[in-house]
Amino acid sequence: MAEVVVIGLGLIGGSLARDLRRVGHRVTACGRDAAKLAPAIELGIVDAVADDWAPALAIADVVVLGVPVGSLRELYARIRPHLPATAVVTDVGSTKASVVRDVAAACGGRLPTQFVPGHPIAGTEQSGFAASVEGLFAGRTVVLTPTADTDPAATARVAALWQEVGARVLELTPERHDAALALTSHLPQMLAYTLMEQFADAGDDALAQLIGSGFRGMTRLAGSDPVMWRDVALANRAQLSLALRRYMERLGELAAAVDAGDGKRLEKLFGAAQAAHRRLPPV
Amino acid sequence: MAEVVVIGLGLIGGSLARDLRRVGHRVTACGRDAAKLAPAIELGIVDAVADDWAPALAIADVVVLGVPVGSLRELYARIRPHLPATAVVTDVGSTKASVVRDVAAACGGRLPTQFVPGHPIAGTEQSGFAASVEGLFAGRTVVLTPTADTDPAATARVAALWQEVGARVLELTPERHDAALALTSHLPQMLAYTLMEQFADAGDDALAQLIGSGFRGMTRLAGSDPVMWRDVALANRAQLSLALRRYMERLGELAAAVDAGDGKRLEKLFGAAQAAHRRLPPV
Repeated sequence: MAEVVVIGLGLIGGSLARDLRRVGHRVTACGRDAAKLAPAIELGIVDAVADDWAPALAIADVVVLGVPVGSLRELYARIRPHLPATAVVTDVGSTKASVVRDVAAACGGRLPTQFVPGHPIAGTEQSGFAASVEGLFAGRTVVLTPTADTDPAATARVAALWQEVGARVLELTPERHDAALALTSHLPQMLAYTLMEQFADAGDDALAQLIGSGFRGMTRLAGSDPVMWRDVALANRAQLSLALRRYMERLGELAAAVDAGDGKRLEKLFGAAQAAHRRLPPV
Repeated sequence: MAEVVVIGLGLIGGSLARDLRRVGHRVTACGRDAAKLAPAIELGIVDAVADDWAPALAIADVVVLGVPVGSLRELYARIRPHLPATAVVTDVGSTKASVVRDVAAACGGRLPTQFVPGHPIAGTEQSGFAASVEGLFAGRTVVLTPTADTDPAATARVAALWQEVGARVLELTPERHDAALALTSHLPQMLAYTLMEQFADAGDDALAQLIGSGFRGMTRLAGSDPVMWRDVALANRAQLSLALRRYMERLGELAAAVDAGDGKRLEKLFGAAQAAHRRLPPV
């Protein structure tokens, strides 16, 4: 049984809390306002809540930081004085190089040996602990991106926790994680927001009756939290920019084929995409 | 009870056939190869199949053309000599101005008074009659785009059939339909194909483990039939091109905000999209 503290009890933090309790750990949610967190006890998400962090952190074995990546630096500086030397700390942020940089900056320039940057590839377009669910991580990948500074025992500890809740753990460098996620997550998010906005600005009142499951699927992500995604876009700026430029180039080629009426080229592009879709691992 | 002939028994044609039988009509599937269609009888999709079209068409009250829009002109020329004067004909193609043009071209330049261009906003990324399902059109919109040449009684007849299977009928001009669908369907399809291709070409073997429900949702449409979509892209070329250009412009603005690290601008863009997403009608 580990004493786990979750700071930032959102969808991911809340779902992890539920699962960690289920496998026998004790979970305390720390926040600025214990009254706002209190319902999480009744919902069975956590054992306790606290707005006085020091006592909770003092007995923590594991601290999970579930806040937006833009808040990590400030948060880490705040918790650092209260962390026992034995406590391992991990996060669940969607970008990793920025997290490594920000946590190091909060700690005088060097990444703490007990900090294990992490990112569970799970979630929905919803947010908040009320949207948390049990079993969210079963069969999902969790990426850990330890650096040369990270204590391998801390990495193993965090990996074991994730495995207890059914996740597969994959270790990557922060940079490789960020390039991959720019493509698999951050770019798709930008595409959904952009499509949704274009729809909103089109100004044909019949449009709402003309959307099918395709459009719904392609804009579902537009329901996601703008502040979280602002943070992610800024934190993974270089890689996201690269992915966006490549995408625009490809889309420009497709548009040129449409303009030229080049059916052969279009069929080839679409066929290659369909073939790639078939090669995706089964859900 | 109407005698209905479906030519092109795919997902849409097959699903409509199922529903029309359910409400009491008799449905015959006509194709080039009756042996390939025969399983549709056993699956309960149609009452009969035929590769000798003349006798089936001779007794038809309603003919539904379920073929890709690129094949309509040739198909219409082929069925025209066998159509009774009283039979109404409709199609289910994703573009409408091109269908009006092609059917008129097959009929000496003038749209037949008994032809009612139609488009059910329903479907999945699957294809073929084996993927057809009952109730696909319940609560969905079906757009009819009659022109000044169309007999209003023919439009009413086709509208009534769709309403019998639970659809809401919306009348639009072919042009308004095509502009709207470029945005709500054809553009999203292009975005999905392009994202899927970019993923396939990225060449990081860890990528397949790093996809979540977001990426799955944004590439689901990439499983769609390349030939059908080639036809749609070409048939709605002008409107699709416009939608693509507008999209690239918007995405370029977003990319510029990412490059500039303009968090305020990004939050505003994402927030506007989220607000628009909330205004979508409930599913």
